[in-house]
Amino acid sequence: MNSPYDTNNIFAKILRGEIPCNKVYEDAETIAFMDIMPQSDGHTLVVPKEAAVNLFDLSEAGAQAAIRTTQRVARAVRQAFNPDGLSIGQFNGAAAGQTVPHIHFHIVPRYADQTLRGHARDMQDPDLLKKHAERIIAALREQAA
Amino acid sequence: MNSPYDTNNIFAKILRGEIPCNKVYEDAETIAFMDIMPQSDGHTLVVPKEAAVNLFDLSEAGAQAAIRTTQRVARAVRQAFNPDGLSIGQFNGAAAGQTVPHIHFHIVPRYADQTLRGHARDMQDPDLLKKHAERIIAALREQAA
Repeated sequence: MNSPYDTNNIFAKILRGEIPCNKVYEDAETIAFMDIMPQSDGHTLVVPKEAAVNLFDLSEAGAQAAIRTTQRVARAVRQAFNPDGLSIGQFNGAAAGQTVPHIHFHIVPRYADQTLRGHARDMQDPDLLKKHAERIIAALREQAA
Repeated sequence: MNSPYDTNNIFAKILRGEIPCNKVYEDAETIAFMDIMPQSDGHTLVVPKEAAVNLFDLSEAGAQAAIRTTQRVARAVRQAFNPDGLSIGQFNGAAAGQTVPHIHFHIVPRYADQTLRGHARDMQDPDLLKKHAERIIAALREQAA
């Protein structure tokens, strides 16, 4: 399950600003942005900036930062989308469904009348993703106020 | 998704020692034990001792303790079971699959040749669970050494 860190994985490129993302939050240790292939409306990713493939490689400080941001953004996602439930998922290794080899936490709103869309399957409309990001950003701003 | 904390939920009873569990780890803030209806061999739960229904209710300190224990126990589960992958899941609300109204983190080993068993469906043989717990305890002991 362990492998050397690939500095050209897509999240590394996002962290370096080489490719864009719909960012909703950033601090010194973490960044959060919309999953471009969301399993449900509001599906957001929290990515520690530390170059770690998975939870086993991540430092304790990196894990602390990741859960702090995950909790903060999850509260904002709940406020913005008012889902019936919300799941946190963190996948280590392809056998567990990890598709990008940089550790990340999924925040997935659940709606009682909808089954989840497939993981990493269909690209979402960019304009819609941008609107979803704006709703989460607004909720984060309210929470901080 | 929010509801008052039910002091008679099954994890509250485990935390008070009123019903047994196959404990693998405990510290001041958290406890970890085998899921009695495991989705795969080695399926372990991390439960913060704080009386919180879900991630929204949990204090920041409680979340920090939970991820620290989750990371520690996940490393031991990996060592003990050598799975092909390992997923962390934390479910908030029945619509997200939460079945016990006390916050908990699932540590679920994934094996390439096996699909997951259903969540909270079939009781595992108690003797097998005890053996699995012993393997994780031994791995935690090695890691601490």
